[in-house]
Amino acid sequence: MESNVIVVGGGPAGIISALTVKSVYPEKSVLLIKEIGDSVIPCAIPYMIDTMENPKENAISDQPLEQAGIKVMIGKVISLDTNARNVTTESGEVISYERLVLATGTNAVLPPIPGVEKEGVFTIKKSLSAIIALREKIREAKKIVIVGGGFIGAEFADELSKIEGLEVHIVEIMPKLLYTAFDDEICDKVEEELLEEGVKIHTNSSIASINGNHRVDSVSLGGGETLPADFVLVSIGAKPSIELAREAGLRITDRGSIWVDDYMQTNIEGVFAVGDCALKRDFFTRREVPVWLASTATAEARNAGANLYGIRVLNQIQGTIAAFSTKIGKVSFASAGMTCRVSEKEGFRSLSASVVSYDRHPVTLPDACECMLKLCFSPRSGIIVGGQVYGCEAVGELINVIALAIQKRVTVREVDMMQIATHPLLTAAPTVHPFINAAHQGLAKMRAAVKE
Amino acid sequence: MESNVIVVGGGPAGIISALTVKSVYPEKSVLLIKEIGDSVIPCAIPYMIDTMENPKENAISDQPLEQAGIKVMIGKVISLDTNARNVTTESGEVISYERLVLATGTNAVLPPIPGVEKEGVFTIKKSLSAIIALREKIREAKKIVIVGGGFIGAEFADELSKIEGLEVHIVEIMPKLLYTAFDDEICDKVEEELLEEGVKIHTNSSIASINGNHRVDSVSLGGGETLPADFVLVSIGAKPSIELAREAGLRITDRGSIWVDDYMQTNIEGVFAVGDCALKRDFFTRREVPVWLASTATAEARNAGANLYGIRVLNQIQGTIAAFSTKIGKVSFASAGMTCRVSEKEGFRSLSASVVSYDRHPVTLPDACECMLKLCFSPRSGIIVGGQVYGCEAVGELINVIALAIQKRVTVREVDMMQIATHPLLTAAPTVHPFINAAHQGLAKMRAAVKE
Repeated sequence: MESNVIVVGGGPAGIISALTVKSVYPEKSVLLIKEIGDSVIPCAIPYMIDTMENPKENAISDQPLEQAGIKVMIGKVISLDTNARNVTTESGEVISYERLVLATGTNAVLPPIPGVEKEGVFTIKKSLSAIIALREKIREAKKIVIVGGGFIGAEFADELSKIEGLEVHIVEIMPKLLYTAFDDEICDKVEEELLEEGVKIHTNSSIASINGNHRVDSVSLGGGETLPADFVLVSIGAKPSIELAREAGLRITDRGSIWVDDYMQTNIEGVFAVGDCALKRDFFTRREVPVWLASTATAEARNAGANLYGIRVLNQIQGTIAAFSTKIGKVSFASAGMTCRVSEKEGFRSLSASVVSYDRHPVTLPDACECMLKLCFSPRSGIIVGGQVYGCEAVGELINVIALAIQKRVTVREVDMMQIATHPLLTAAPTVHPFINAAHQGLAKMRAAVKE
Repeated sequence: MESNVIVVGGGPAGIISALTVKSVYPEKSVLLIKEIGDSVIPCAIPYMIDTMENPKENAISDQPLEQAGIKVMIGKVISLDTNARNVTTESGEVISYERLVLATGTNAVLPPIPGVEKEGVFTIKKSLSAIIALREKIREAKKIVIVGGGFIGAEFADELSKIEGLEVHIVEIMPKLLYTAFDDEICDKVEEELLEEGVKIHTNSSIASINGNHRVDSVSLGGGETLPADFVLVSIGAKPSIELAREAGLRITDRGSIWVDDYMQTNIEGVFAVGDCALKRDFFTRREVPVWLASTATAEARNAGANLYGIRVLNQIQGTIAAFSTKIGKVSFASAGMTCRVSEKEGFRSLSASVVSYDRHPVTLPDACECMLKLCFSPRSGIIVGGQVYGCEAVGELINVIALAIQKRVTVREVDMMQIATHPLLTAAPTVHPFINAAHQGLAKMRAAVKE
């Protein structure tokens, strides 16, 4: 069997790679091989537990692929021969290719906590059947401990707090929830929302052991406290799925990703890698970073897809800016670029400016909602290196204004005179739009920092 | 009496000019003189009729100005002596200045329609007392005809349709409502929303006469039709307030605005003009255009305010991109840059790409809402020259992603690989985000247009 192009992986990176190849090179045959037959949209997994009436709503359909003329095969690729240019599947099929795209994603891994193997301890798997099973088990639980206070942990805590009669604890080893994502004051707001929903938060806390005979009945924290629990959800420790690549002799980075060049080609000609399994470089330092986001993955997929048979579209991705958003309780949160904490840690001098405004004007209009925006920028050039926001629904796109600004290396000077659309029912007033206003405050700080 | 800086005008341009001057040059005394004591946020005026319980909610407070140490005077400046550098107020006061900022805005003008002087015919004035009076009169009306289907007319039609028992007609001389703002398919969507609210739309229609003895009782259209009416709201024909400037000998443009350079200085040293009264140049053609938006006005105000005593902050405004948003019925609409219709009319070659998506993923999540995004771009370079959107709340900031892209001359190639934040509860999926997706479709059109 043969296909001009083989894509391994059925997540966003695999799907977009296949669709892009097919649209740019319609004459090429494209085969997408995926392990999970009933895959789901990964970022919506938390909402399959309670928000969705039927978790099947989150299933990924093969229809767009098939409509585009892409073949879809359910199967596991167990080996790759880059000299012969073929892959072998678990069922014994050998399929040759001209170009191969690996989009194998990450796997959740269980941390080496004593008792982690007990019944009642779960990780999050990305198949519909696994999540349906998880949903049913959660509905039988009374006291749940979520291990890990990153995005997935916080989103699960938020979602589970809506289930009546369920006590939800979240345990995080760092000083605050979402600590790598936000500066302190924004982490505090996240915690405030979860506390209001009744979630019990344990930060600065490691897990010493998961206890119980056969079945979990409690969790001991590093500080000595013991939390009764009949369900433990582990949401730390994902790592890139690189076994296939490693065995085929592809170059693997120090942090365990598949090395790729700026056009997502691995060290072996004709073999590409995109998405969470591929090397991610930071936008500012170009050092490797463990940032796994579907938005970066799909951008990489479009880059690879367009350039599989020669470079036609110059790469525009200068490294990941880690742009993301989430909703915790009634508040939406988002970030792009470096937090001020990270910026300092990485040795970048920076200034910050924060403003609070409302997303309506006048603020007495119905549904007006408080919005906070913080910019982190370079003190001399004024180039914006990061932005964080919280507020209501518009936060989801407001962060993308900042994300574009970061990618285009826009300065607070430019934003200060940027033209933006405003409307009483949709945004802050033009006089106090938070992006403009934060840039304006930032300029004042730059002036103050330079003695004239 | 004297003040280092005098600002004439109490709208957004005047307020931000005064605040910027005071923050950049704290040692300078700043006096703001405004004619209207009870001024209101201009863009929220339609919502003072019904949405706001109390129209006073929309009053502009002098508190931020006074807190910043700016003096506020209610009064009318009746003459300006640019040699002596002083202004004279109606009450006879002569006040000298070092720098003067004119932010006199626009005035509504009544078109020369027979009968326009009759009782029951109103224009929109920007004072609280005038709007309270308008609100009371509207509540006595049964059949209202709105003359002019631009933003103000359409927003009033939307707002008035919520008043029970009131029949609302809107008359527009162009082929569609909001014709200068949007391409046909988006105008159609606006009309669809208004029709659903029961508004009667008369496009391609001029007003022949306003009829009645003393008081209006009907309106005759150019096509012969007569609409019974006990209230007529005229929302066409604003023009810059330039009498003071003209009499003082400032240069006035062909279209009747105060001429300014790139730093908002008029042809006379020390005299600046900002906002609706000042020359607006188009971003793409640099020709004069009648675009009057608070967001442009406030950007100009920051430009002028920072540079009143020597150019400290290089101007970043390369002309107006006419970025705006609105909400009609349940749908939010927005535009930035040129529509495809305008682009063609102005002689720009362009291509367009439109996509429809949803602002949640999966689309079955609660409150998922259809979102349409259209890009207009240059066929060879791929530079984005315009974007139009409709959808739900996030449209208000989504348009600002496009607005920034236009101002930074971003190409569809760059957007195709742009990193954006997405979240199931806040945005479309990363695989189908409308901005990225429209750019991606646009790239395909560019490929198709160039024979390889």
